[in-house]
Amino acid sequence: MTTGAALVLFSGGQDSTVCLAWALSHFEAVETIGFRYGQRHAVEMAQREIVLSEIASLLPTGRRLGADTVLDLPALAAISDTALTRDSEISFAASGLPTTFVPGRNLLFLTYAAALAYRRSIGTLVGGMCETDFSGYPDCRRATLDALETAISLGMDRSVAIATPLMTVDKAGTWALAYELGGDGLVSLIVEETHTCYLGERTHRHPWGYGCGTCPACELRAKGWKRWREQVSSPSHPGP
Amino acid sequence: MTTGAALVLFSGGQDSTVCLAWALSHFEAVETIGFRYGQRHAVEMAQREIVLSEIASLLPTGRRLGADTVLDLPALAAISDTALTRDSEISFAASGLPTTFVPGRNLLFLTYAAALAYRRSIGTLVGGMCETDFSGYPDCRRATLDALETAISLGMDRSVAIATPLMTVDKAGTWALAYELGGDGLVSLIVEETHTCYLGERTHRHPWGYGCGTCPACELRAKGWKRWREQVSSPSHPGP
Repeated sequence: MTTGAALVLFSGGQDSTVCLAWALSHFEAVETIGFRYGQRHAVEMAQREIVLSEIASLLPTGRRLGADTVLDLPALAAISDTALTRDSEISFAASGLPTTFVPGRNLLFLTYAAALAYRRSIGTLVGGMCETDFSGYPDCRRATLDALETAISLGMDRSVAIATPLMTVDKAGTWALAYELGGDGLVSLIVEETHTCYLGERTHRHPWGYGCGTCPACELRAKGWKRWREQVSSPSHPGP
Repeated sequence: MTTGAALVLFSGGQDSTVCLAWALSHFEAVETIGFRYGQRHAVEMAQREIVLSEIASLLPTGRRLGADTVLDLPALAAISDTALTRDSEISFAASGLPTTFVPGRNLLFLTYAAALAYRRSIGTLVGGMCETDFSGYPDCRRATLDALETAISLGMDRSVAIATPLMTVDKAGTWALAYELGGDGLVSLIVEETHTCYLGERTHRHPWGYGCGTCPACELRAKGWKRWREQVSSPSHPGP
């Protein structure tokens, strides 16, 4: 149990939902921050409201969620040509980075979060950044976040920690962590309500949730689910 | 002479105008970026257009200015409006910073600039941050910017330099640098068109420009002007 307050970067996706459950299990006071920066995220923004209203009641801590702040970032769409903010196909650019890459997007999100945290006397930011996806996002790497932690702490003259509970956890491990934190209730909330699909698809229901099933985000989520189910159904596994 | 391209954080104030002249004298290609984030800056935004249209013709290099990008940052005002907790009120009071202060503002500006620079293959950001003002902004210190340079370079997987030509220059030195870069023409442009006054005052004309003359920004500018004029009129001074 870590004491104190945490501000969770919460998008309404699977990873940030698990991070929110983790924060609610580790901090005395938890607030959330979200960012509006492209039409494709409208579905995710709607789902995040549902997750926010239900998650706390599913966890054994009985802790309530604090304030939620959503910031509009029109500048991000203005800068980027990327697939996440337009209807172009998800593909890979010549640089090897996905075309969804908004350079430094997570640096901006975390710096905004740090500014809000400063004003609300919150010492820890929590983000779902992860190195295990091989997604090619250099702003998700821990070395990047260590440097940013230093820059923010110096620039705000106050120590700010960036906690990344999923940094070394693969997608099967993310499902396992969800089960560990909130049992079947939390797993079910993630399946039914969290949104990951790049295409905003929510009509097809798969065992792992809603989505097109073929975009990179759906593929990653589906594979993680499959591996986790195999692990828990293996005779050598202690449960569930 | 540095070769390559630079992106100047350009507000229309005295410091960023001198930085722009410096960049036009040191880089082969120069673009500008500005940020809209509050009504108080409307005057500054209007003056910046005038400076942008005139500055290149006043410099001996004969170089033309490249594209200007202005980004809307409504989230900065949203963070300012965030209700302060009791603890943060106390710490604001103790630090002497105004309660509208958005901590880490320069980190955000530079990270946005870096994202745009990435898109436009520009390797150097230029900002007017300065340690000599004792203005109390920790995000203007060189140590902060060194850490941010590392965070951005790691997070975008590309080397980004943050040049701060005024970092160790006092306000008299800023006038001297303007004269050195662009002579009487540039000094006159700064006096007549750049805006610094916190109150947006542009009716009173002082020897150093327009402004209320009493806010901290006007005081700093006036004192710098006075010291510079004393220096150049001293018998031991070589010119102008």
